[in-house]
Amino acid sequence: DFLNALHEIIPAFGASMDNLERCRLNGMVDCGERHKHIYERAMLLVEQVKVSKGSPLVSCLLEGPSGSGKSALAATVGIDSDFAYVKIISAETMIGLSESSKCAQIVKVFEDAYKSELSIVILDDIERLLEYVAIGPRFSNLISQTMMVLLKRFPPKGKNMLVIGTTSEVGFLESLGICDAFSITYHVPTLRTADVKKVLDQLNVFAEDDVDAAAEALNDMPIKKLYMLIEMAVQGEQGGAAEAIYSGKEKINIRHYFDCLGDIIR
Amino acid sequence: DFLNALHEIIPAFGASMDNLERCRLNGMVDCGERHKHIYERAMLLVEQVKVSKGSPLVSCLLEGPSGSGKSALAATVGIDSDFAYVKIISAETMIGLSESSKCAQIVKVFEDAYKSELSIVILDDIERLLEYVAIGPRFSNLISQTMMVLLKRFPPKGKNMLVIGTTSEVGFLESLGICDAFSITYHVPTLRTADVKKVLDQLNVFAEDDVDAAAEALNDMPIKKLYMLIEMAVQGEQGGAAEAIYSGKEKINIRHYFDCLGDIIR
Amino acid sequence: DFLNALHEIIPAFGASMDNLERCRLNGMVDCGERHKHIYERAMLLVEQVKVSKGSPLVSCLLEGPSGSGKSALAATVGIDSDFAYVKIISAETMIGLSESSKCAQIVKVFEDAYKSELSIVILDDIERLLEYVAIGPRFSNLISQTMMVLLKRFPPKGKNMLVIGTTSEVGFLESLGICDAFSITYHVPTLRTADVKKVLDQLNVFAEDDVDAAAEALNDMPIKKLYMLIEMAVQGEQGGAAEAIYSGKEKINIRHYFDCLGDIIR
Amino acid sequence: DFLNALHEIIPAFGASMDNLERCRLNGMVDCGERHKHIYERAMLLVEQVKVSKGSPLVSCLLEGPSGSGKSALAATVGIDSDFAYVKIISAETMIGLSESSKCAQIVKVFEDAYKSELSIVILDDIERLLEYVAIGPRFSNLISQTMMVLLKRFPPKGKNMLVIGTTSEVGFLESLGICDAFSITYHVPTLRTADVKKVLDQLNVFAEDDVDAAAEALNDMPIKKLYMLIEMAVQGEQGGAAEAIYSGKEKINIRHYFDCLGDIIR
Amino acid sequence: DFLNALHEIIPAFGASMDNLERCRLNGMVDCGERHKHIYERAMLLVEQVKVSKGSPLVSCLLEGPSGSGKSALAATVGIDSDFAYVKIISAETMIGLSESSKCAQIVKVFEDAYKSELSIVILDDIERLLEYVAIGPRFSNLISQTMMVLLKRFPPKGKNMLVIGTTSEVGFLESLGICDAFSITYHVPTLRTADVKKVLDQLNVFAEDDVDAAAEALNDMPIKKLYMLIEMAVQGEQGGAAEAIYSGKEKINIRHYFDCLGDIIR
Amino acid sequence: DFLNALHEIIPAFGASMDNLERCRLNGMVDCGERHKHIYERAMLLVEQVKVSKGSPLVSCLLEGPSGSGKSALAATVGIDSDFAYVKIISAETMIGLSESSKCAQIVKVFEDAYKSELSIVILDDIERLLEYVAIGPRFSNLISQTMMVLLKRFPPKGKNMLVIGTTSEVGFLESLGICDAFSITYHVPTLRTADVKKVLDQLNVFAEDDVDAAAEALNDMPIKKLYMLIEMAVQGEQGGAAEAIYSGKEKINIRHYFDCLGDIIR
Ligand SMILES: Nc1ncnc2c1ncn2[C@@H]1O[C@H](COP(=O)(O)OP(=O)(O)OP(=O)(O)O)[C@@H](O)[C@H]1O
Ligand SMILES: Nc1ncnc2c1ncn2[C@@H]1O[C@H](COP(=O)(O)OP(=O)(O)OP(=O)(O)O)[C@@H](O)[C@H]1O
Ligand SMILES: Nc1ncnc2c1ncn2[C@@H]1O[C@H](COP(=O)(O)OP(=O)(O)OP(=O)(O)O)[C@@H](O)[C@H]1O
Ligand SMILES: Nc1ncnc2c1ncn2[C@@H]1O[C@H](COP(=O)(O)OP(=O)(O)OP(=O)(O)O)[C@@H](O)[C@H]1O
Ligand SMILES: Nc1ncnc2c1ncn2[C@@H]1O[C@H](COP(=O)(O)OP(=O)(O)OP(=O)(O)O)[C@@H](O)[C@H]1O
Ligand SMILES: Nc1ncnc2c1ncn2[C@@H]1O[C@H](COP(=O)(O)OP(=O)(O)OP(=O)(O)O)[C@@H](O)[C@H]1O
Ligand SMILES: [Mg+2]
Ligand SMILES: [Mg+2]
Ligand SMILES: [Mg+2]
Ligand SMILES: [Mg+2]
Ligand SMILES: [Mg+2]
Ligand SMILES: [Mg+2]
Repeated sequence: DFLNALHEIIPAFGASMDNLERCRLNGMVDCGERHKHIYERAMLLVEQVKVSKGSPLVSCLLEGPSGSGKSALAATVGIDSDFAYVKIISAETMIGLSESSKCAQIVKVFEDAYKSELSIVILDDIERLLEYVAIGPRFSNLISQTMMVLLKRFPPKGKNMLVIGTTSEVGFLESLGICDAFSITYHVPTLRTADVKKVLDQLNVFAEDDVDAAAEALNDMPIKKLYMLIEMAVQGEQGGAAEAIYSGKEKINIRHYFDCLGDIIR
Repeated sequence: DFLNALHEIIPAFGASMDNLERCRLNGMVDCGERHKHIYERAMLLVEQVKVSKGSPLVSCLLEGPSGSGKSALAATVGIDSDFAYVKIISAETMIGLSESSKCAQIVKVFEDAYKSELSIVILDDIERLLEYVAIGPRFSNLISQTMMVLLKRFPPKGKNMLVIGTTSEVGFLESLGICDAFSITYHVPTLRTADVKKVLDQLNVFAEDDVDAAAEALNDMPIKKLYMLIEMAVQGEQGGAAEAIYSGKEKINIRHYFDCLGDIIR
Repeated sequence: DFLNALHEIIPAFGASMDNLERCRLNGMVDCGERHKHIYERAMLLVEQVKVSKGSPLVSCLLEGPSGSGKSALAATVGIDSDFAYVKIISAETMIGLSESSKCAQIVKVFEDAYKSELSIVILDDIERLLEYVAIGPRFSNLISQTMMVLLKRFPPKGKNMLVIGTTSEVGFLESLGICDAFSITYHVPTLRTADVKKVLDQLNVFAEDDVDAAAEALNDMPIKKLYMLIEMAVQGEQGGAAEAIYSGKEKINIRHYFDCLGDIIR
Repeated sequence: DFLNALHEIIPAFGASMDNLERCRLNGMVDCGERHKHIYERAMLLVEQVKVSKGSPLVSCLLEGPSGSGKSALAATVGIDSDFAYVKIISAETMIGLSESSKCAQIVKVFEDAYKSELSIVILDDIERLLEYVAIGPRFSNLISQTMMVLLKRFPPKGKNMLVIGTTSEVGFLESLGICDAFSITYHVPTLRTADVKKVLDQLNVFAEDDVDAAAEALNDMPIKKLYMLIEMAVQGEQGGAAEAIYSGKEKINIRHYFDCLGDIIR
Repeated sequence: DFLNALHEIIPAFGASMDNLERCRLNGMVDCGERHKHIYERAMLLVEQVKVSKGSPLVSCLLEGPSGSGKSALAATVGIDSDFAYVKIISAETMIGLSESSKCAQIVKVFEDAYKSELSIVILDDIERLLEYVAIGPRFSNLISQTMMVLLKRFPPKGKNMLVIGTTSEVGFLESLGICDAFSITYHVPTLRTADVKKVLDQLNVFAEDDVDAAAEALNDMPIKKLYMLIEMAVQGEQGGAAEAIYSGKEKINIRHYFDCLGDIIR
Repeated sequence: DFLNALHEIIPAFGASMDNLERCRLNGMVDCGERHKHIYERAMLLVEQVKVSKGSPLVSCLLEGPSGSGKSALAATVGIDSDFAYVKIISAETMIGLSESSKCAQIVKVFEDAYKSELSIVILDDIERLLEYVAIGPRFSNLISQTMMVLLKRFPPKGKNMLVIGTTSEVGFLESLGICDAFSITYHVPTLRTADVKKVLDQLNVFAEDDVDAAAEALNDMPIKKLYMLIEMAVQGEQGGAAEAIYSGKEKINIRHYFDCLGDIIR
């Protein structure tokens, strides 16, 4: 039924740029040296894939805590390369499908990629693609075997390919042996206080006097959670304050900000 | 067969307000500060969803012991928002269905919600939706994966959404990683003696001299169990006393009340 | 196939009183205060269901060692209520059925009950309905989830219902979380020596001089096992003595009685 | 498919006496007091079933080490009763059948038995019927649940029934809870030296001087294994001696007998 | 589907002698007293089966380390008996079949054997027939149950049968309870130095001065591995030496022999 | 469905040499004595298979860490033999197939091989063929049983065969018992510093002064990873340097080389 599954696939793949952009709904701000370094290294791999002779397949894993910016980073590399074929494989578009259908979709994307001279495939949130859950643990071995083979299989002659994976369960992937299947791994970190400060400066929603206190309260903060916190704080204690703050007329009430923080990091 | 399952769904969703009201058959009484605080915070999230730009999806988990009032609270937030689409997803309407049919129904509710500009979806008793049982433990990984993806998937552009979950098995959800998938979590507590006193005063079924003793015997009492206890006590030792008490002509026999209490909390 | 299963059900439900009577083939004798107390309390719940306003569903679990009289007690409450709909759900009528067929039958009984203004449903030998076996342990999670939902689902407006469960594996039910789903739990005990004495006096099969010795040899005896013991003893050492004893012409040979006791409680 | 399975059953049940006799291919010799006692007690149960009023179902489990004579004993009780319906349920006639077909066959035998006023059903080698294997352990829960229900289900009014089970895995049955489902349990032992002596005397294949030594070498010997040992010894060291010994012309070479013993009990 | 499986079986059984011979491709050499003893005892069982009255079924298990000569021994006993029906059941002819098809084939061989007055069935490599693997462990319970029943089921009246099993996983068979199902068990050993010497003398591929050293280097050597070692050594260090040695013109280079030994027993 | 699976196989097997060459995309360089020794020994087995009489089946396992050159080595032996039939069985061509289809394909290759007088079958990456994953562990027992039987089954008379396996999970294969099924096992090692030096000299991408430092930084380096490292280093820090280096105009920047090394062996 794997073959059937392959045929069932609706050719829904095409306007992928749309999907890539959805990975960075909050845009990309400068959030510190470490994020920047990973971006640069990943772009070097893009280079390598372009000119390589011996190794037509290069792969790179971005791992890090939930919300640290992995998917946005991978999408950005995909967008900034000028490759003809850039696709993201995500569990979002495969909800409720059987293991073998998911498997078929993943294979389909790789087969399509093999047709382009230069291609990037993003395996987003690999633990979710594998239907991983810590209790047991349980996961789809069918999909994990498929991935391990795809990560070692060379594209046909004359075609070169970059695979970028993201995960927040690197320990699990390691025990599966999937980490080893990647050429290289980068750790995407949470934000340190200094990074947070940088981001808050760019967002400009705190009174000048408050921004330091606001940043100092945060360490090891994932960029995604930081955005959620700000959005909560922006509503104000009674609600209704958001518009005024976004338009710059008001600033976030620092006390309410700390309340929200308490709720969020419990 | 997931796709089949999707088609099989009878469009039984519509008059949902009815379901919401069934979650609070005993009405809503004032049962203390802590319940009130959660209600207010949840209403702020309703606000945030209305005005948000960057984060079209906000989610909130209400966890607490069995009978502490989670479902009634979630339903009340749903009713008090003036959102066009408010639906409760409950195991009650899915008895005996296969995992994939349940999964399809859950997805269906989200897909429907995506069509409204503002929507609330309540995942009631998540452990029951997941068919969780502590022995093993066992649960439906199909449904848990679906939930984890749905809790991170953004609605289409221009649509905003609040998801409220309830559970009395927060430890289990945590080890699944579902807690992390919620933006925020609130603990719905049992009633302390002072809270019980407040409730008993409102119910007015004890003689004035007894109400303090009646309340003091109870600490860490879930609101739902309190209602059951009162109803038992109201029958009287020989039965037949209920009508007189409800109509205010008589009061609960305190000794019989203590007997019932003994039976119930063994 | 759950829906199919529902349709397959032969409308074999109707003359249920017959089944109820089969639960007490040996009749009901007075076997002590503790049994009587449970009966009275259960009858009070019958009352409560009749007059209740706020809680249309009351449930009560009878737990105790094998043979202690749980099923007979539940059946008696069912018979003594004057409710229009009283049904017993027992594994006996579902031998060899698949989990989903059993599940469908259980649901069917509840759905039927919902049509009566006042109803009693007896879930007899819950561990057997759940196909429980201690090794593993193994059990049907499909049926246990169904039960847990049914035990919390309110009947439609205007319909009230009492659910009585029986089990000799209360520890197992507790770890499933099924105990918590019942409003109240009563422990049905084995007979103490004094209780046994009372029963033997009523049966009148011992010589006057022997009855005390016969009773004193027994403590923690389930009522059902006591009946089996008496029946064995009644045969006499060489067989053939039963008729004479039952007709009152002879009495049980006390030595043979002790032999039988030795065989039975090894 | 249980119902289908029921229909598939070829009405191969009829000439059951044949099967019963096959359980005692070596005939029945006197092998000691303990075996005799069990036989007598089992025959008393036959009596009880005939005259019982209150308990239409009596059950008895014969447990003991492999080869101790359980099946032969059960068959003998079946033959010696003069009941109209006596059937043995054995794994031998169900090789390769699915769990549900086996289950259906077992149920069929009980249903047939319910039609006779007096019946005996032998569940031979229960662990084999349950497909038990110690590793895991594994077994058929479908069949074990069916058995547990059948062992408690009363035949219809006016029909009485004796169920005899045999097993060499009493510990396993106990942990399943199947032992408790039997009214009574008897332990069928191996032979002590004195019992062996009795048997050898009856077989008359040793020289008079050797029979004591032959018996003394054996303790805790199952009757079935004793027969195999004798048959091996009877061949003689070079083969070909059997006929002479069986016809009484020669006796077993005691040295070869000890060699065989060495091979067999390693 | 077991019944279907039975019908699917191609009547490929007939020229079995062919299969038996394939079990001893290297012929049979004298490899010591212990192997000889087992052969003789097994031939006595052949005798016993011929003349037996009481026990129409005798069974014998050959267990020992991998390559110790079990299959060749069993085949030789089969060939040397002059029984009409001698069949070997081996996993080789059942590759890729489902459990139930394998099961059906095994049953088929026994059913065919029941038609001959005297028959031998060889269950070769029982752990492979059971699809055993130590991790888990995993194995086919369907096949193991079938085997246990077949090993205790008597052939029809007037038919006698010998079953020979081989295994190198006796510990596993013991924990399954399959060992107990055999009447007798023999341990087939590896070769001691003296046995090796005997074999090497017969093969005559070493220079007279080397044969002692060659033998002394080996202890606990399975006969099968010994053949492989000799064949490797025979090639010579540069290859091409085999013909000269086999034709007797040259002898094995003892240094190269030790190199091969080093490679093989690492 | 195994038989169906057999028929489904597209006769895609033919131009296998192509596949063999794909196993050594980077060509074969001299990488030290130990690799060479294994190659020579394997070629001796090729010899043995050609001239063997007694053992028509020889098998050899190449085990070693990921990337140590096992597949390239096996392919080279296959190419350098002048056998008519040389096929590689790899998971790459069986992505997403069911266990039984994979099983059928493996059997098909062996059956085809049996038709040639001399054949080589390469089982590449056995753990991947077995769908092995360390968590659990999980693997396909169907495929492992098939392999164990195929590794012991002799080709038909007159046909000789060499089977070469490769694996980087030798511990797992050992616990399955698959290692024992191979006649001989060789360990393919990583490169020591001296081996690395040899390879770097041949590649000629470092300045003369740097090559020693470059080699000394590496110990226990698999040959495959070494190629990836060089290719990364060749891009230069800003990208764009590859062409100049490959054409010999420039050399690798040693500092950038160390940076890449840091990224890769984290
Ligand atoms: N420099 C940056 N790098 C990454 N993300 C950024 C950056 N600047 C802003 N963002 C925003 O931060 C968010 C990062 O979330 P993202 O989904 O990429 O995290 P993640 O690590 O993939 O989370 P998860 O573990 O939940 O998959 C995005 O909304 C993105 O628009
Ligand atoms: N302030 C209040 N908050 C919540 N519930 C209230 C309040 N006042 C009265 N109630 C009543 O208390 C009951 C709370 O039960 P509810 O089903 O919401 O609890 P729960 O925590 O969801 O229980 P469970 O764990 O069984 O799902 C309802 O009948 C509701 O009508
Ligand atoms: N006062 C009594 N209460 C209960 N049972 C009684 C009483 N007097 C007599 N009996 C008889 O005792 C027996 C009780 O058996 P019953 O099947 O109810 O026990 P049980 O606890 O349900 O057993 P099990 O654990 O096997 O389900 C019945 O035959 C019933 O007729
Ligand atoms: N007094 C006796 N009681 C029982 N069996 C006897 C007696 N005398 C002789 N036998 C013979 O001993 C053998 C007993 O074997 P039987 O199969 O009954 O043992 P078992 O305990 O059922 O063995 P298993 O555990 O293998 O099922 C039979 O062949 C029977 O003919
Ligand atoms: N006396 C002997 N006994 C047994 N085998 C012998 C003897 N002499 C020579 N052989 C040869 O030794 C080999 C024994 O291998 P065989 O396959 O029987 O071993 P095995 O114990 O069945 O191995 P495995 O555990 O792999 O099944 C055969 O090739 C056989 O021809
Ligand atoms: N002497 C050599 N031996 C082996 N491989 C060599 C040699 N010289 C160069 N190579 C190259 O090194 C690489 C070895 O990779 P190969 O895939 O064979 O490793 P592997 O051990 O099979 O890895 P994996 O564990 O991932 O299967 C090939 O690209 C091959 O071209
Ligand atoms: Mg992400
Ligand atoms: Mg609730
Ligand atoms: Mg009962
Ligand atoms: Mg028996
Ligand atoms: Mg063998
Ligand atoms: Mg490889």
